Amino acid sequence: MQEVVIPQKFSFNNLALQSGKVLENIDIVYETYGSLNADKSNAILIEHAFSGDAHAAGLHAIDDRKPGWWDNMIGSGKAFDTDRYFVICSNILGGCAGSTGPSSINPKTNREYGLGFPVITVADIVNAQKQLINHLEIKKLLSVSGGSMGGMQVLQWLISYPENIASAIPIATTMRHSPQQIAFNEVARQAIMADQNWNKGNYYGKKSPEIGLSLARMIGHITYMSDKSMEAKFSRNLKGQKFSFEVHSEFEVEGYLKYQGDSFVKRFDANSYLYITKAMDYFDVSGKNFIKQSAKLKNLRFLIIAFESDWLYPPYQSEEIARQLKLKGYNATYCDIKSAYGHDAFLLEIEDETRLIKSFLNTVTKNN
Amino acid sequence: MQEVVIPQKFSFNNLALQSGKVLENIDIVYETYGSLNADKSNAILIEHAFSGDAHAAGLHAIDDRKPGWWDNMIGSGKAFDTDRYFVICSNILGGCAGSTGPSSINPKTNREYGLGFPVITVADIVNAQKQLINHLEIKKLLSVSGGSMGGMQVLQWLISYPENIASAIPIATTMRHSPQQIAFNEVARQAIMADQNWNKGNYYGKKSPEIGLSLARMIGHITYMSDKSMEAKFSRNLKGQKFSFEVHSEFEVEGYLKYQGDSFVKRFDANSYLYITKAMDYFDVSGKNFIKQSAKLKNLRFLIIAFESDWLYPPYQSEEIARQLKLKGYNATYCDIKSAYGHDAFLLEIEDETRLIKSFLNTVTKNN
Repeated sequence: MQEVVIPQKFSFNNLALQSGKVLENIDIVYETYGSLNADKSNAILIEHAFSGDAHAAGLHAIDDRKPGWWDNMIGSGKAFDTDRYFVICSNILGGCAGSTGPSSINPKTNREYGLGFPVITVADIVNAQKQLINHLEIKKLLSVSGGSMGGMQVLQWLISYPENIASAIPIATTMRHSPQQIAFNEVARQAIMADQNWNKGNYYGKKSPEIGLSLARMIGHITYMSDKSMEAKFSRNLKGQKFSFEVHSEFEVEGYLKYQGDSFVKRFDANSYLYITKAMDYFDVSGKNFIKQSAKLKNLRFLIIAFESDWLYPPYQSEEIARQLKLKGYNATYCDIKSAYGHDAFLLEIEDETRLIKSFLNTVTKNN
Repeated sequence: MQEVVIPQKFSFNNLALQSGKVLENIDIVYETYGSLNADKSNAILIEHAFSGDAHAAGLHAIDDRKPGWWDNMIGSGKAFDTDRYFVICSNILGGCAGSTGPSSINPKTNREYGLGFPVITVADIVNAQKQLINHLEIKKLLSVSGGSMGGMQVLQWLISYPENIASAIPIATTMRHSPQQIAFNEVARQAIMADQNWNKGNYYGKKSPEIGLSLARMIGHITYMSDKSMEAKFSRNLKGQKFSFEVHSEFEVEGYLKYQGDSFVKRFDANSYLYITKAMDYFDVSGKNFIKQSAKLKNLRFLIIAFESDWLYPPYQSEEIARQLKLKGYNATYCDIKSAYGHDAFLLEIEDETRLIKSFLNTVTKNN
């Protein structure tokens, strides 16, 4: 039986941003699973990916059809075992699923921010999460984990707050967006801004840029899968019996992309797409920005996971994270999981991830 | 000194298409380099890629700034040595650089075809080329070669007219578009059709769908380069001094994509984009569609070239062509050239291509 979980809201007054601006009246929506122990030492923060939200596990109502996005990883007996750990997931700053973002009301104008929302960074996102963790009176997180842009937040935690975590599990991520990763984001942004309904971000209460946002998502979905997984799922199958010899979609893969685009626009804000991809592109904790060598931090433990067929966040990027951590003398384990699922693997290779993460968390708990 | 070359036009009355339709009043624009020998045995047909044209080599005027698209491969002493060979390149049917396509005048309506143009296939494109080769009174081509969609035409020649070629050099290509390759084309098509100026293909003499076509080209350019070549060319360099903290383009790679998109719309027709990508997606000469085993054809020779970092037409697809040819008992050589340039490598790895192609053509000439 799946747990019914109730989203909570934490609000605070000010956040000084990396840009130098200050954001006011911030809401952070979050969910928790399991119970915080007496000494508050069993908390794990889960970071969602670009288009995710705070609803990582469980159901919002008993008759919900769909559980949270990482429900097969979070729960009783699962990788993030809620019988042992207190698991937290919050919607990121800049998002559109309850936390303050461009579609929120700007207290100064009483209208949606739109492009009036300040450009934020992954460090800003993590600083907002730190406020939530302070509010929950947790001094040290047992672990922080997430895939894709979730992994960037994990890395940012170890840069910004290394003394407030005991371990970190970055998955299918990178220390810095490569020009190819920036390029895919940029084409998606251009598709949104080319939609006449985008109207320089001022579309709230009017027609929204659904066509542009849908295109952006279609591009995204190609990068989330692999050549192999697409072949396995669609091959060259047609929706109809034979070629139509008309200029319209007719391959199954085309229908799939259209469906993914169409459903995305119902749940995601186009301006959030612009702001969050920008935060990803700005992200760079490589080189001198990386975690420093520190005797005080020598007990920090790291598990870095990548997936063989992930060409959006290729394994060499994760391997480099592990290499840099080891060079600084940290206890880091790197695992490249065999998988054909491409970047989506972090949501699908549950068995391998569970085995790795369970035993890793056991070690961290023992040593903490 | 570079040769000045004059494009020529060949016209014919009818072409029966794979769709069952018949196209009338067809123009094929072509160029030739070098001289046809007395027994017409030294002709090589060069096939251009998706967005290429008949201008493969030389200059159109002495003060031209830019030579043809494969000028470093075609000319005196080059891979396709015009001192020895008579080289032909024609703009494909469905194109927009002189040959009949959707932007041509439909003789039945005296207006541009637009979506009234029939959907064509790579076989139709090659059938039109065969008319040109007949017109030039060439019975057997010494070789046929081209990269990317040019390579598909090469493969189509060996399926449709194996007795009219002595050899074939397909480069960076595939026997069939995979769902990933279809997916990239589909997103590009959707971007074009989402542009309000597209107007169901009826935009001639009006504003054309430049934004959509530019987006399509931007997506294309990401797939033509490699992760490595983008890192080498752009890394994370900014156009300005530092992050702007504004929602607009600021990385060099973003500026490059925009430039490529903007220049493309000046020379390419959006409807041609739709029709030609459709022909690529329909293309499938794998399995039972592949060349048959034939004692009559046993002297046919093949050189198949792929590039290590090409992820749009990955080497495994070229290797499969070579494997199938060898299984049928043909003389096929496969070479995977080390290169960081991605799919663009077929336009850039001139030294290696020249060495391979020169010695291959020597063998073909000797045995013919």
